[in-house]
Amino acid sequence: MTEQARMSGLATDLYQLTMGAAYHANGRNEPASFELFVRKFPAGRSYLIAGGLKQALDYLSELSFSGEEIDYLRGLPVFEQVQAEFFEYLRTLRFTGEVWALREGTIVFPGEPLLRVTAPLIEAQMVETFLLTTINFQTLIATKAARIVEAARGRGIIEFGARRCHSFGAAIYAARAAFIGGCLGTSNVEAGRLFEIPVYGTSAHSFTMAFDHELDAFRAYYRVFPESTTLLIDTYDTIGAANLATEFGPRLRGVRLDSGDMIGLSKEVRAILDEAGMQATKIMASGDLDEYKIAKMIEAGAPIDLFGVGTELSTSRDAPALAGVYKLAEIEISGEVKPKMKLSPDKATYPYRKQVWRESDHDGSFKEDLITIADEVSQKGEPLLTPVMRGGEIIGSLPRLEETQAYAKEQLSRLPLPFKRLTDAAHYPVRYSDELERRRLELLKTVDS
Amino acid sequence: MTEQARMSGLATDLYQLTMGAAYHANGRNEPASFELFVRKFPAGRSYLIAGGLKQALDYLSELSFSGEEIDYLRGLPVFEQVQAEFFEYLRTLRFTGEVWALREGTIVFPGEPLLRVTAPLIEAQMVETFLLTTINFQTLIATKAARIVEAARGRGIIEFGARRCHSFGAAIYAARAAFIGGCLGTSNVEAGRLFEIPVYGTSAHSFTMAFDHELDAFRAYYRVFPESTTLLIDTYDTIGAANLATEFGPRLRGVRLDSGDMIGLSKEVRAILDEAGMQATKIMASGDLDEYKIAKMIEAGAPIDLFGVGTELSTSRDAPALAGVYKLAEIEISGEVKPKMKLSPDKATYPYRKQVWRESDHDGSFKEDLITIADEVSQKGEPLLTPVMRGGEIIGSLPRLEETQAYAKEQLSRLPLPFKRLTDAAHYPVRYSDELERRRLELLKTVDS
Repeated sequence: MTEQARMSGLATDLYQLTMGAAYHANGRNEPASFELFVRKFPAGRSYLIAGGLKQALDYLSELSFSGEEIDYLRGLPVFEQVQAEFFEYLRTLRFTGEVWALREGTIVFPGEPLLRVTAPLIEAQMVETFLLTTINFQTLIATKAARIVEAARGRGIIEFGARRCHSFGAAIYAARAAFIGGCLGTSNVEAGRLFEIPVYGTSAHSFTMAFDHELDAFRAYYRVFPESTTLLIDTYDTIGAANLATEFGPRLRGVRLDSGDMIGLSKEVRAILDEAGMQATKIMASGDLDEYKIAKMIEAGAPIDLFGVGTELSTSRDAPALAGVYKLAEIEISGEVKPKMKLSPDKATYPYRKQVWRESDHDGSFKEDLITIADEVSQKGEPLLTPVMRGGEIIGSLPRLEETQAYAKEQLSRLPLPFKRLTDAAHYPVRYSDELERRRLELLKTVDS
Repeated sequence: MTEQARMSGLATDLYQLTMGAAYHANGRNEPASFELFVRKFPAGRSYLIAGGLKQALDYLSELSFSGEEIDYLRGLPVFEQVQAEFFEYLRTLRFTGEVWALREGTIVFPGEPLLRVTAPLIEAQMVETFLLTTINFQTLIATKAARIVEAARGRGIIEFGARRCHSFGAAIYAARAAFIGGCLGTSNVEAGRLFEIPVYGTSAHSFTMAFDHELDAFRAYYRVFPESTTLLIDTYDTIGAANLATEFGPRLRGVRLDSGDMIGLSKEVRAILDEAGMQATKIMASGDLDEYKIAKMIEAGAPIDLFGVGTELSTSRDAPALAGVYKLAEIEISGEVKPKMKLSPDKATYPYRKQVWRESDHDGSFKEDLITIADEVSQKGEPLLTPVMRGGEIIGSLPRLEETQAYAKEQLSRLPLPFKRLTDAAHYPVRYSDELERRRLELLKTVDS
């Protein structure tokens, strides 16, 4: 369960493979274009920060089926009557398509494609599940992190939530996405190693409890980490422990509050530390924090320097799922490229391969987005989707993770305040081009059902 | 990212390893006992279904640090001053402890340990993160699945949510846990292969859209899967498509509704199918379903045979995190075993290694639970925690997944209705033994801080 492990070819939903078999038996494998986008944002989210492209492209470039995986499929009752040729096809299948995508860290609004896949129909279809899982999740967490980082107004945020994540694999990617969204680092050591993210840690209540006296515990830890000790001071009595902490003087890196009235306690503890000449010793807070609680603490003048955020960030608890979808936009049928759209209630889509153009004001702040047909040229703004994979191979090299973090930060600085308020944010203007609207209406008239 | 891959020794929070280094440098590695339990259940949950023990034990039995992982740690600034002996210790570290646990599929109430680890302090501490991640998540999903299955009153539930899961690793374990909670199967092929879970699939809107006419798509699919076709009929117009589906006659396995008014549509579609002599053709419903919507549909007499449930189940969207904790209960200090407890506001714990006794009525229905000190013998009920690992080795073999599913089903059938209502469920009675309460009060008097 590390980045190195090859993802199984079976990392998909069964219907992707039954559809593949049906396409194959019907001689259908023409180029098709699918787009991944989020129609409706979760409550409270006015923008998203794109995440997960790196893992999505790694998956595409390594896609294959092992003999064991194919044997498993052949043994399933549903595939009993499927001809051997399909399994022969799977045996040598590689992803050969083209991918256009938003750079990771880009700000995204409803309906804007984060990714567009153009590939032979069977390939383009079967990768849907993994692409959605990967991009939905990292985008969800990068966005939540950005909200929390914005709320902290410059104080540092550390991702702490591995224990509440949806498996340790989820924890690894939560840490990565949280870093994109602006966190200083993570408590997750494996994520630190895999993605070169700074790792942070303090100590736990159990450490204090493993000694007869709280001060014994503090001394035992400090002796080993004189340069980097953050003492957890709420195991028994926070103020009492803060007084014990003064023994270590100004070299003590920090103290951590994990329960109780954080605003009052942080002020009292700050006073105790300052009194002892420990102005440089930082106060960290943790314990079910989210962007709203952090904003409130900062507003109340709580002298907290760092926040450790777990559950709320790493599971995006208030909005734990992103409803990203992957929809057919164009397909070649009998040599002719045809635009496609879905009409289901509340789930209708726009046809054609698309491009997103972002217009900025003269001061660089974002002004309006325009969604056009891919080959339209907008007079205003810059195109956000760029080619990242061709012939199944990643084009060039992707940005380093810290460059992606810096890019997301820059993006957020260009988004005017009304569009990123924590509550009641304004809707950022996104339009479909006149040409796209016109052609969609034309197509609507011809739809058969 | 499959079951086969070894989990990194770094799959933990940094503070577990800094505490390990501090314990090591201070010559502290006495046996300690930690218990994993859920103090406070998420809103709406009156019971939990224990899940994840298999993966937790696999992790413990394989725990180790590779040379590369140790090199990474040694390169971290925080470990710069830590002596080489600690890294030598990690190089040969294996988990050597004892584990007692509730069987997977057991019903759990607040405060009841799901797992107890007794091991040398450093080992017992550093496994905390992975154990919590694994057990929190699978318990969360098994519980959500049980609620949905209960709501469906005998109609089948299929887990469909991979695309909204928190990484594909999460999707695999969500499918496993959902099966424990009573689902018939999953759409996730890799989970099907790894855990021998039945896999299910229909087809997608894109399949219909890939043909010029809806009926062409239906025929193309049916021709390849004459025994197992479930047609998705809401791409353009549900009733129109239901009429098209009658072409296939009674051999058609099913049709799927994915949008619109499910109650009304299912009745209309049932009538169309019945009229065509297709009484055996099943109706499946999907599309943002949860236990409440399913209960409502069944109450309204919707003739739906199967439900595909995704996001709400696979992310437990209404309660996406379980606040399981792992707390020190006893530790040997200078040759003497000492009970331990935490006093932080709202986070206080009970000391001592514990056992849970479940008393049943003469008809087998659950009556009351008693939490005692581990070596107390209760006069009533049966003990739920049993030894599952000794000396770091799994004892015997764990039940097969379908046995676990059957066990969970039997457990739920013994839980009286008031305790498992979807809303406003009654609190199941759980008491701490008089002896445990007495000794806790005694200990409170002596706590130092």
